[in-house]
Amino acid sequence: MPTYSWHAIPKDVVPNSSLPAGMSRQSIVGERSMLCMHEAFPNLKCKPHQHDAEQFSIMLQGRMRFVVGSETFVLGPGEIAHIPSGVEHSIESLDEYVLVLDVFAPLRPDILARLKEIGA
Amino acid sequence: MPTYSWHAIPKDVVPNSSLPAGMSRQSIVGERSMLCMHEAFPNLKCKPHQHDAEQFSIMLQGRMRFVVGSETFVLGPGEIAHIPSGVEHSIESLDEYVLVLDVFAPLRPDILARLKEIGA
Repeated sequence: MPTYSWHAIPKDVVPNSSLPAGMSRQSIVGERSMLCMHEAFPNLKCKPHQHDAEQFSIMLQGRMRFVVGSETFVLGPGEIAHIPSGVEHSIESLDEYVLVLDVFAPLRPDILARLKEIGA
Repeated sequence: MPTYSWHAIPKDVVPNSSLPAGMSRQSIVGERSMLCMHEAFPNLKCKPHQHDAEQFSIMLQGRMRFVVGSETFVLGPGEIAHIPSGVEHSIESLDEYVLVLDVFAPLRPDILARLKEIGA
């Protein structure tokens, strides 16, 4: 059984096609789902994007504004967003450091390609 | 976009075919994955079981022993287990209250049936 520790998982901090500047990502890849722990600096805006994978964003620290289609929500610790497959969304961290655990299902090819690129 | 708060999600605390006595479950159901926040009392043993869904167990509080096939691991906060689809496993909480966030992909029909039963 594979086991993981967040502190031992490489942190990707270099902006790339799947990771905006000012964010970091640690990824754990399963068969049909993947976990990505994301950090964001305060007051960071990510432009709209979409992916075939559905997304759960599980807020752990700080507050983030989600714009999903025409809807806007601000979520904080203990709250969860579900972004269905293929729906365009953007996010914005508010005035604090943000830590959010994202679950994607199925796997995101763009993140898999990036993991291969960095040898993770 | 559906949003959720853990504190507003009904907590199933009645033992049933998908939930051993001494544990509770809060479920959030997506399209291809589901989140289940599980609590367990200290020193609780759950008998071996398996399911078609792969499982990530994300430890949040306390320590738990995982037996997966012939392998045994003790994991605590900041650690994650991946249990592949169809692999038999059992868990045991150690001397503390355990809080663990499980991710299942795809959806578990036994849990969906239980949610329907309790009207959640």
